[in-house]
Amino acid sequence: MQLKNIFDLSKVSSLEKEYFEQLINEKSFYVERIVSKGHVTPKGEWYDQGRDEWVMLLQGEAEILYDDLSGDKMYAGDCLLIPAHKRHRVIYTSEEPECIWLAIHFEKS
Amino acid sequence: MQLKNIFDLSKVSSLEKEYFEQLINEKSFYVERIVSKGHVTPKGEWYDQGRDEWVMLLQGEAEILYDDLSGDKMYAGDCLLIPAHKRHRVIYTSEEPECIWLAIHFEKS
Repeated sequence: MQLKNIFDLSKVSSLEKEYFEQLINEKSFYVERIVSKGHVTPKGEWYDQGRDEWVMLLQGEAEILYDDLSGDKMYAGDCLLIPAHKRHRVIYTSEEPECIWLAIHFEKS
Repeated sequence: MQLKNIFDLSKVSSLEKEYFEQLINEKSFYVERIVSKGHVTPKGEWYDQGRDEWVMLLQGEAEILYDDLSGDKMYAGDCLLIPAHKRHRVIYTSEEPECIWLAIHFEKS
């Protein structure tokens, strides 16, 4: 089978923008790897997603803010479920090392 | 939101048997964490799964053998897709450190 390594950034040419890579793409869910390097949600913007998102931080440190002003500091290995329409912003991602995320977006069945 | 850490084994009471923990359970797919400590597929047995399995090794070292006698040695961060009905056996998992896996089992849509 074809092995890939989730930590391998050799094919990530530039991190000027946040990097998204689809790993599985099915009708009811998709899985992506995200690489962030200091990227945050633009000021005043909130993510308001139609699907649940399960996300795991594999490398780096990050901080998420919710619209009730609670937040989560995330370190390597931390995972959480962000329910659909739970408004949130990413307010910090480390640059050294870059943040590597695995995100699963899915419809509730 | 409720943070968990994928590397946290404090609630894994015993590893006499391989440990399975469901993280997401939907109709079309489920996600589980597996912790192995020297566990291998019993002699003469093969996994022959009805669904595709995407698997990532997060900690430890492991080796998978396929029925065409090809194999994959896996190290932390390695991921691969095992298609449905691709017969395979796990022939090695490290004990120190334990192997921590994330596995996604899914129906093709």
